[in-house]
Amino acid sequence: MAGGDFLKELQAVLGPERLLTGTEDRWCYAFDAAAAQPKHLPLAVALPRSTEEVAGIMKLATAYRVPVYPRGSGTNLSGGVIPREDGLVISFVEMNNILELDIENLTATVQPGVVIQELNDAVAPYGLIYPPDPGSVATATMGGSVAESSGGLRGLKYGVTKDYVMGLEVVLADGTVFHCGGKTVKNVSGYDLVKLFCGSEGTLGIMTAITVRLTPAPEARRSMLAVFDRLEGAARTITGIIANKVIPATMEIMDNVTIRTVEAYCHAGLPVEAAAVLLLEVDGIPAVVEKEAAIVERVCRENGGQVRVARDDAERENLWTARRAALPACARLRPTTVLEDATVPRSKIPEMLLALERIARKYNVSIATYGHAGDGNLHPTITCDERDQEEMERVHRAVDEIFHTAIALGGTLSGEHGIGLAKQKYMELEFGASGVAVMQRLKQALDPLGILNPGKLVGPLPVKE
Amino acid sequence: MAGGDFLKELQAVLGPERLLTGTEDRWCYAFDAAAAQPKHLPLAVALPRSTEEVAGIMKLATAYRVPVYPRGSGTNLSGGVIPREDGLVISFVEMNNILELDIENLTATVQPGVVIQELNDAVAPYGLIYPPDPGSVATATMGGSVAESSGGLRGLKYGVTKDYVMGLEVVLADGTVFHCGGKTVKNVSGYDLVKLFCGSEGTLGIMTAITVRLTPAPEARRSMLAVFDRLEGAARTITGIIANKVIPATMEIMDNVTIRTVEAYCHAGLPVEAAAVLLLEVDGIPAVVEKEAAIVERVCRENGGQVRVARDDAERENLWTARRAALPACARLRPTTVLEDATVPRSKIPEMLLALERIARKYNVSIATYGHAGDGNLHPTITCDERDQEEMERVHRAVDEIFHTAIALGGTLSGEHGIGLAKQKYMELEFGASGVAVMQRLKQALDPLGILNPGKLVGPLPVKE
Repeated sequence: MAGGDFLKELQAVLGPERLLTGTEDRWCYAFDAAAAQPKHLPLAVALPRSTEEVAGIMKLATAYRVPVYPRGSGTNLSGGVIPREDGLVISFVEMNNILELDIENLTATVQPGVVIQELNDAVAPYGLIYPPDPGSVATATMGGSVAESSGGLRGLKYGVTKDYVMGLEVVLADGTVFHCGGKTVKNVSGYDLVKLFCGSEGTLGIMTAITVRLTPAPEARRSMLAVFDRLEGAARTITGIIANKVIPATMEIMDNVTIRTVEAYCHAGLPVEAAAVLLLEVDGIPAVVEKEAAIVERVCRENGGQVRVARDDAERENLWTARRAALPACARLRPTTVLEDATVPRSKIPEMLLALERIARKYNVSIATYGHAGDGNLHPTITCDERDQEEMERVHRAVDEIFHTAIALGGTLSGEHGIGLAKQKYMELEFGASGVAVMQRLKQALDPLGILNPGKLVGPLPVKE
Repeated sequence: MAGGDFLKELQAVLGPERLLTGTEDRWCYAFDAAAAQPKHLPLAVALPRSTEEVAGIMKLATAYRVPVYPRGSGTNLSGGVIPREDGLVISFVEMNNILELDIENLTATVQPGVVIQELNDAVAPYGLIYPPDPGSVATATMGGSVAESSGGLRGLKYGVTKDYVMGLEVVLADGTVFHCGGKTVKNVSGYDLVKLFCGSEGTLGIMTAITVRLTPAPEARRSMLAVFDRLEGAARTITGIIANKVIPATMEIMDNVTIRTVEAYCHAGLPVEAAAVLLLEVDGIPAVVEKEAAIVERVCRENGGQVRVARDDAERENLWTARRAALPACARLRPTTVLEDATVPRSKIPEMLLALERIARKYNVSIATYGHAGDGNLHPTITCDERDQEEMERVHRAVDEIFHTAIALGGTLSGEHGIGLAKQKYMELEFGASGVAVMQRLKQALDPLGILNPGKLVGPLPVKE
């Protein structure tokens, strides 16, 4: 086995049980949830239990110049945690303690291995929520979620993960530990390192403790399904609701392809003939919910939508189960599911939706489009078969055009899935060579040996000698 | 004159009218609003009108290794724009155009010299506001405000400047221009450069265009004055209101010293015998305002506060004029006004208030304490005379103890004023040597010659040859 001395020293830090070197074990860490990406068996998998152990691992990794791949549950969709053969995966599943709930300051401090839903379960008795809710909320870890700055259904009103991270404990490439941010609501002391590490996809440092902001759970909420004969009607409704100064907690779209796919999968009673549906939820105190729901219904109707209001929790649950089924339903159709998250300014959503229809026809690929319509964060999902080279060629060209279109419309490569391996080649499209160079200089400043999740986000950098 | 060739080349870029070299002109740029800081006459003052001119200036500054001091209106309170003798001030007063109001996407794009209030005036007809409202809103520029990530009275509910900046055009030290962020509500593409440059105090790059998020103006609001016989009652009210899940738009405190000083200055009808007053405002749709105001009043009364509600706009204006008079009123008392913004977690506000009383007695200095109580961002203000060395020695020791106390309580050096020159020596207290080293590495990565506002925030760095 490669890296014998390194592994021997590592075992002295972790003990034999928490350093996996068996082939079967290592295979579990060779890939992540992103489709059509390479798979690589890592050298070994470390399962640290403390910040000190992580620091010890990084000191050894620096000494031996071994690439390190920090990993939560591996649910990311951009190839963010795929290792190389010569690299060590650090899995945080054993660092899964909620370190503190500070109800007075509305904060929680957690280790990176805490599952997002577990945090929400822990704060629910206090009438609080941790708003970021990626689709993978039941399995994804806080560490992975912060590293990817993941979003979710409530992003329109509540923002993404980085909007909730207040403080971090970080282990740098050389094993140095430091803290930034904290529990103060306002903090403009020095560079905003919290925001720099949040969303850095494990390329700048390893987060070993995370302090997040909690918010009071909304007192009331109302979920609605609006059914449209024409895609344009749905698109106009999205911008119309915002123009009426209502920011729904959630405003999701599913196009016809998605509706049919989901309905076949989970029989939620969706209208399979509709061009599109919007799933909407407003929340807050009852008077606000009442008022905003009325505006939402009116705007939907003005744009040709038929509105059904969920009458109880069961109907509400049914709606959101249908939306959450979009990805698994698509994934069932074909062996490979390429899920993108190109994002455009809100006003460009109609253009983007029409462009996606055009791109699907042009490359003869099946694109199901759904996603967080209110914030312009669509999820065009291409079902295909990665063993079919000719088809994949068309898929890649379609994806190329999706990103070029999003950027041309003033959009961005990622609303919530990150860059990882999958979107690296498009980085210059968004940031220009100068912008990418800025990011590479930051990466080199904090990880001069290039051992932290190398190859991700800013692409391969020369290892300095 | 020093820098002859540099200035000659610079004049070719800007013309003679927009390169100030006269002594009187240069004196206007030798200091900023921070007290007890050094003053230095800069080499010259450049007044660019375009991004291209800024890039041209930076190319020359790089070629001649001349330090550059970007500057808005100079209202910052941490010595952030004080030049050195061998440096060029770049004033952005002539880059003061609102480039775009995008009402559909709720964004505005401005040049750095736009005054904050001018932006608010421009968006008001659309029923929108740009929430950050530092005390200097009528004179401070957007560029300076973004560079400092300034806060203000509404910070508790609405956040600080960095929460509103969505996109930037940046000129780097070597004159390279690049863009980051944009108009998408969600954006997790690459490192969060927008947040890194925001609050970087001119040390990493120069912002030449700024895209900010606007929000709908609240439909209704209610202002209240709560009068307390005991400081503890006011402190308990602050945490009590939040514990009741009400986040007021504004929750300001003034202690007895401040009340007396303000009342003597502007005769607002404040209760001069009170130990403290809270000035509170809730806003939103009328039903929310009604409900939240009732909770606020109840919590005030439960903690011994007497509540007066502003019955009309005139009474409301009177209240906020009194609060905004705190700094000028204090400044009138003595020649020098040292205004700090140490910030603590909300639960530590009572302890911090008591500590400030103790520190004032211990060092025999006069501390007026007021500020943004709801977010723990207090403004202990020491009035003194910088010509009196013995007094200033006590002032500096009191300030030292204020920052040590804030950090010991889990707080931060700055809630909204930044680090600049004034608080640099405390940086290790908050971030440790490792954290400061991380910031210095980032600074060196983006400004290897150390010509961008050198000496600020991360302290002096060796100029690389």
